[in-house]
Amino acid sequence: MLENVRIVLVNTTLPANIGAAARAMKTMGITDLCLVDPKIFPSAEATSLASGASDVLAKARIVATLEEAVADCSLVIGTSARSRTIPWPLMDARQAGEAVLAESSSQKVAIVFGREDRGLTNEELQRCNYHVCIPTDEEYGVLNVAAAVQVLAYEVRMAHLVAAEQPVPEENRMPVQFLNWDQEVVPHGDMERFYDHFESMLLETGFLTEDNPRQLMARARRLFGRVRLDRIEYNMWRGIFTRLQEIAAELKKAKS
Amino acid sequence: MLENVRIVLVNTTLPANIGAAARAMKTMGITDLCLVDPKIFPSAEATSLASGASDVLAKARIVATLEEAVADCSLVIGTSARSRTIPWPLMDARQAGEAVLAESSSQKVAIVFGREDRGLTNEELQRCNYHVCIPTDEEYGVLNVAAAVQVLAYEVRMAHLVAAEQPVPEENRMPVQFLNWDQEVVPHGDMERFYDHFESMLLETGFLTEDNPRQLMARARRLFGRVRLDRIEYNMWRGIFTRLQEIAAELKKAKS
Repeated sequence: MLENVRIVLVNTTLPANIGAAARAMKTMGITDLCLVDPKIFPSAEATSLASGASDVLAKARIVATLEEAVADCSLVIGTSARSRTIPWPLMDARQAGEAVLAESSSQKVAIVFGREDRGLTNEELQRCNYHVCIPTDEEYGVLNVAAAVQVLAYEVRMAHLVAAEQPVPEENRMPVQFLNWDQEVVPHGDMERFYDHFESMLLETGFLTEDNPRQLMARARRLFGRVRLDRIEYNMWRGIFTRLQEIAAELKKAKS
Repeated sequence: MLENVRIVLVNTTLPANIGAAARAMKTMGITDLCLVDPKIFPSAEATSLASGASDVLAKARIVATLEEAVADCSLVIGTSARSRTIPWPLMDARQAGEAVLAESSSQKVAIVFGREDRGLTNEELQRCNYHVCIPTDEEYGVLNVAAAVQVLAYEVRMAHLVAAEQPVPEENRMPVQFLNWDQEVVPHGDMERFYDHFESMLLETGFLTEDNPRQLMARARRLFGRVRLDRIEYNMWRGIFTRLQEIAAELKKAKS
């Protein structure tokens, strides 16, 4: 299905952005790139920024107009930074991913990105079925074009994975969240002292030897990191460790 | 809540990536950046790539170790390209956004990004409560670090917007999708001919004058772009336009 998804970059000025966009596409499994009248292409800088995705650049199609770029597409979605003279059907990036997924099972789809400085013209936007808006900060909404490609390509891939039911395994998914908890979760600085204390105690009680201490502490970090401790639990454990150290010290004294 | 979200970049080599990461953060409303032992910082290149987000760089905190960067955080999520020696609780980017949102209402949260070439070390990853994996193409999974920051910052913002119930208005949301449709959706090349035909017909029948043709055709594009036409509907309309043109021609002939 991702083969039916095309990324169209209109009038891109900086070769670096073309390269970074190609890389962003390929990381998400999209490889059909069409450049509408790019300022400079091909370019060594684009190839450099594309990193391992230079094959996407090599087979990119270069055309003169947006019409040519999307002539064979049944769904064309244009990226837009909100309000235009005439309001247009607007999707957010997540919906765009879902719409692209649904359509690309049978027909070609294009997502169109505009110029670095002024995006797409009104005329170009009117050639799109839908507009998509990535929700940005109210005061600073200037997404880099390759970053916008990354977000939309990511949403297309996510829609694809969700549809294919390939999410992360359920048992690994849910973090223990502390909503409406009465105690604060202990911050990491304290937890470092906790692990130091835990390790000291294990050494002093003779459980831990110098042989393979690493793996055990890693597993302890995984366990306590996953469950996370609130302040009362933390204090309880620290108290236990202290008591165990005292016992170890007493034993050592008794033996000597 | 976004004030409690920190982006931590560990040992970043390229100043351009630090700048691009700062921009990516700020577009999503996140401004707390912490750099662990960056190779070169500050740098003119970072500032240039940060574009309007140089304030994020200006107030970035620089520390020597990951421990310092996250000491005051109750939840630390490390970016990882999957399998490590010990499996760790793994979230996808969407879940990470939700977890960050839930936690950041009351406590500090960090998302940690590793080196360009080798990511985070096992030791650094073991200092994280959870790992997050952005699902990439099986054969090409090399996300640029600023692109990874963009995706995760975007997911944090989306979780925030969804929780605040600020999605795109419902009436603009649903595209007409053609799942299980018997006819193909007409591609854009044909639709351009449709609009040309429509406009010619309107001119010939005297409905459209030279005064303000733009706005009307824009509205026609919006309407047909939104609903989209299948092949039978398309042919029907083309037939209607042709018939209306014939009538206009006959009328002109009769009048002359």
